[in-house]
Formats: sequence, C-alpha cells, structure tokens
Amino acid sequence: MDGCIFCGIASGAIPAKVLFQDDHVVAFHDIHPVAPVHVLVIPKRHVASLAEVSPDDREMLGHLMSAVRRVAVETGVAESGFRTVINTGEGAGQSVFHLHIHVLGGRTFPWPP
Amino acid sequence: MDGCIFCGIASGAIPAKVLFQDDHVVAFHDIHPVAPVHVLVIPKRHVASLAEVSPDDREMLGHLMSAVRRVAVETGVAESGFRTVINTGEGAGQSVFHLHIHVLGGRTFPWPP
Repeated sequence: MDGCIFCGIASGAIPAKVLFQDDHVVAFHDIHPVAPVHVLVIPKRHVASLAEVSPDDREMLGHLMSAVRRVAVETGVAESGFRTVINTGEGAGQSVFHLHIHVLGGRTFPWPP
Repeated sequence: MDGCIFCGIASGAIPAKVLFQDDHVVAFHDIHPVAPVHVLVIPKRHVASLAEVSPDDREMLGHLMSAVRRVAVETGVAESGFRTVINTGEGAGQSVFHLHIHVLGGRTFPWPP
C-alpha cells in the first residue's frame, strides 16, 4: 500500500535488518528494540491489523505464527523463553497499521504485559 | 494430556467460563484477569508451547489467530483496541504448558509489554 512503511520493507524499497523472508512473510529487527531480541514478523501482503483479517487469512496467519517460532529458534531464545505480542488499534499501542507480530526475548518479562 | 488443566477445560472435565468453542479451539475467560477483557484461546489438542509447534501445525495456528479476532469482536474490543500475548517458556512467564493466547482489552496498554 502506498505510504505504508512495512509494505516498503516487504518490497525491499525501505532498508531493514532482515532476519529471513519467504514468499509470504518478512522477519526483521525492530529499529526501537525493547529487549535484547526484538524482531517483527509481518505478512508481505498489506493487512492493517488483526481486527481486519477474514477467514480467508487463516493460512497467512498460520504462516506468520510458524515464522514466529523460526525467529525464536534463529535468535537463540526458543529455550530461554520469549514473548509474542500483537497490538491491535491505537488504544493498544499499534503505531504502524500493517499487521506485525513482536517477538521479544533475552530478558525476563513481567506480568501483566 | 493427563494432568493438564487446559486439556481438562478443552474436554469439559474442568469448568470454565467459555466464550465459544469449535472443533479445534476453546476461548474462555482467564480466572486471574489483568484487564477488563481477558480471554484465553487454546487449541483443543495438547501442544505445550509455541516453541513446540511444527510446520504441520500451521492450520491450527491460523485457526487460533482467527479465533483471537472473534474474541475481540464478541467482547466488544475490536474497535477500542486489544493486545494479544503469548508467553513461551518459564522465562517469559508461561505458567501452564498448554499453548494459550491471551487476548486483553478494555484498558490502555503501556509499552514495552
């Protein structure tokens, strides 16, 4: 989508520290990390948020979650533990309206999140 | 799995405030809510954590994430905003080792999570 920074990263037009990508998803390091490991997983196709997905998006969502596990393995936090967070809507802290999953690891995590 | 509290909820052997369920997932209210809306979404099949999923679990993961959106719609927080959290491993705060997704809404959410 025009003007969407994460569509720009997905297309390669905007540089990012990419961990891996495939036909459907890109995983890249957050530019404002809040943990020693802080990677974002996004679909290449523009979807504004988790509130906007349809039943047709199930396969994409499964692909994204499978990529989250791969991020944890490749960054070495699958054993030590990691927190996966999706903010949906401004009220929950979503700042870029292209669906993205935060994968956080390398420190302890308080509760509530 | 014997002795797993969330398998007990999935089978109906352990009571819970169930929001909805289908063949694959159950959504129920957390007994220790940390937000006005705090629902857990679990697969009926036992999977210990997101670190334990395989590529074969993609469909199940897509189903879970689709159910997260349904939770947000049915609890009235899809518009106001909601935070989705998965803790994987004790270091990240996972206390029950049956994969579960927290859906939190009805308040503001600080960052980092």
